[in-house]
Amino acid sequence: MSKMYKKLLLAPGPTPLPQEVKIEGAKDIVHHRDPESKKVLGKCMENFQWLLGTTGDVFLLASSGSGAMETAVQNVVSPGDKVIVVNAGNFGTRWLKMTKAFKANVIEIGKTWDKIVTPEELKKVLDENPDTKAVFCQLSETSTGACSNVKDFAEIVSKTSAITVVDGVSGVGVVPLYMDDWKIDVVVGGSQKGLMIPPGLAFIAVNKKAWKMVEECKQSRFYFDLTQYKKHVDSGNMTPWTSAITIVNQANVAFDMIRSEGKEEMWKRYSKLAVAVRQAIHALNLELWSECPGDAVTAVKIPEDLKDGGKIPAIMRDDFGITIAGAQGSYKGKFIRIGHMGAMDFYDELCCISALEKTLYKLGWKFELGAGLTAFQKALID
Amino acid sequence: MSKMYKKLLLAPGPTPLPQEVKIEGAKDIVHHRDPESKKVLGKCMENFQWLLGTTGDVFLLASSGSGAMETAVQNVVSPGDKVIVVNAGNFGTRWLKMTKAFKANVIEIGKTWDKIVTPEELKKVLDENPDTKAVFCQLSETSTGACSNVKDFAEIVSKTSAITVVDGVSGVGVVPLYMDDWKIDVVVGGSQKGLMIPPGLAFIAVNKKAWKMVEECKQSRFYFDLTQYKKHVDSGNMTPWTSAITIVNQANVAFDMIRSEGKEEMWKRYSKLAVAVRQAIHALNLELWSECPGDAVTAVKIPEDLKDGGKIPAIMRDDFGITIAGAQGSYKGKFIRIGHMGAMDFYDELCCISALEKTLYKLGWKFELGAGLTAFQKALID
Repeated sequence: MSKMYKKLLLAPGPTPLPQEVKIEGAKDIVHHRDPESKKVLGKCMENFQWLLGTTGDVFLLASSGSGAMETAVQNVVSPGDKVIVVNAGNFGTRWLKMTKAFKANVIEIGKTWDKIVTPEELKKVLDENPDTKAVFCQLSETSTGACSNVKDFAEIVSKTSAITVVDGVSGVGVVPLYMDDWKIDVVVGGSQKGLMIPPGLAFIAVNKKAWKMVEECKQSRFYFDLTQYKKHVDSGNMTPWTSAITIVNQANVAFDMIRSEGKEEMWKRYSKLAVAVRQAIHALNLELWSECPGDAVTAVKIPEDLKDGGKIPAIMRDDFGITIAGAQGSYKGKFIRIGHMGAMDFYDELCCISALEKTLYKLGWKFELGAGLTAFQKALID
Repeated sequence: MSKMYKKLLLAPGPTPLPQEVKIEGAKDIVHHRDPESKKVLGKCMENFQWLLGTTGDVFLLASSGSGAMETAVQNVVSPGDKVIVVNAGNFGTRWLKMTKAFKANVIEIGKTWDKIVTPEELKKVLDENPDTKAVFCQLSETSTGACSNVKDFAEIVSKTSAITVVDGVSGVGVVPLYMDDWKIDVVVGGSQKGLMIPPGLAFIAVNKKAWKMVEECKQSRFYFDLTQYKKHVDSGNMTPWTSAITIVNQANVAFDMIRSEGKEEMWKRYSKLAVAVRQAIHALNLELWSECPGDAVTAVKIPEDLKDGGKIPAIMRDDFGITIAGAQGSYKGKFIRIGHMGAMDFYDELCCISALEKTLYKLGWKFELGAGLTAFQKALID
């Protein structure tokens, strides 16, 4: 392979950044307590409220998305509390491990990673456990690409005293979400996925029903203690600790771009892209991994009869300059993951399909060279 | 005041960035699990080992410095453990609140913020409490500028089964520190002070004596669980959650600059700068706040008979484009803080002294205009 000047990032996060966001990352530091920064922080919180569709509080954290997940657990789960975890992937498993680490009494609704948990299944378990305090689930399960029906989950939970906590790390900004309308109580997420900004910023949105639990929560907490965050927002200080202020500024630049496109338009664009990628996958004689593929990440089954199929991500990266992701944990080698989120455009995905074709060809997979590209192209002719 | 094009940041963190670091912040995102990023993360850890003077493990966190402080507490303090907190400032108080939040049995050695705790005082309390598990202190107390004698603290603690945990947030990279030689067991810090990189990255260094406590610790923890970090470093995966990879790259750029200057040379340069600022302060008929001023931050007493002295930071910022910091908490209005850390050069401090003179003049303080600048200039003639 000749030297590659162009490398493309199509993993399900971190994702590529728009030029405007990159340039913002090179600017001078403004002190996080400067009046200018306070405005920037306030604007960023409002931007998140708008994107999430909530009038509830949004708090900005200096952490990765996992830190925001921990914030949710530490602030609504007291030791011994009964919680339900919907688990059909690596991040469902993360909720499981986290709630257990903080000594919750955890009921798991577990599935293999090619399946999703249905609202009916959740309802049954919730009915059997009326003392449940919180239900933890994923908007988009980053590890499998599956999108569960969090709208119906939240509708069911809203009829009880429990709250719905949604991991929106790879979903927010990519797939539809109307936090208040859908009666979701807590949404958490990170910066490095649909938001088109570097990793290191995270957020948590909390409605009134959940806030009561935050106030009553008996968990040991400090860095992620939301009562501290609330106090500092209310006093105009905005955050209790030093903000990742550069990334907050970058977020506002990205939000300007998102607002100018419109969030529904953006979700439609990603969806079109995902549909086209799925068409290409079929044209390459491959199958989708999940029974319920979402529009943020496409998981593609590695055929069992394809020798060295587990090497697809490494070959695509090392020989063809395209970074996608493999499967995580015990599913390693079973499927690959292609992101459609962040500043990924049609041409990025086109190059990704091209690299996937070349890789499959190299590995001896039977398909017609160009078939994926053609299917992708056809899917995007309006 | 005419429009200001040039604004200078001289707060005790976040600090200004060198051009090279800013440009690094505008580069394309590389996936944090890419082989290139793994090398970058490994190199950054080695850089920290070198700067801290330790052969122990260093872990990189996506958080602010307070997150690194929490990491120390969550990983070495089990509920009910007896700990000693050295507290003569806002960040000593942060150790106090944090250790209490995680249910430690806390013994506070407290002083007013113009004083420091001596090694003799620590020895006395430690002798009276042989069941102490850990001693928490500050290398540089960011809120007061004071530098305690952590070398002697650690020497005393090393003779017991307890460990010394040092908050190096504003000290690391600015004042001398030899973690292993000084027998310090844990050092934590953030990115936005002496390291000349944006906020959002933090670190914790842990030696063998402390690591045993990490393994035995009974605290609920997940995001900051160092056993997870260790597992991922050992497996070559480097970090358990998504890294703030852009800031890690920026850190390596800053470390290249620091290594090329030499750390001892750098510490000397900051010290010279601090000495010159203190000379200027005296020449302006002002007094230093702390009985033991350090070289990272200079705290200057606001004279009680200076009307509107509490407005100094706001006037310097709004009228003269210079950001310094006031005092925190209940000491607000009693002193101001000028940083000498990060990419602050002689000329930045010169402009700061100029703005301070103009501000004092405006407020009617009695001094000779130019006296501060002259003293600063004289102090730096070799």
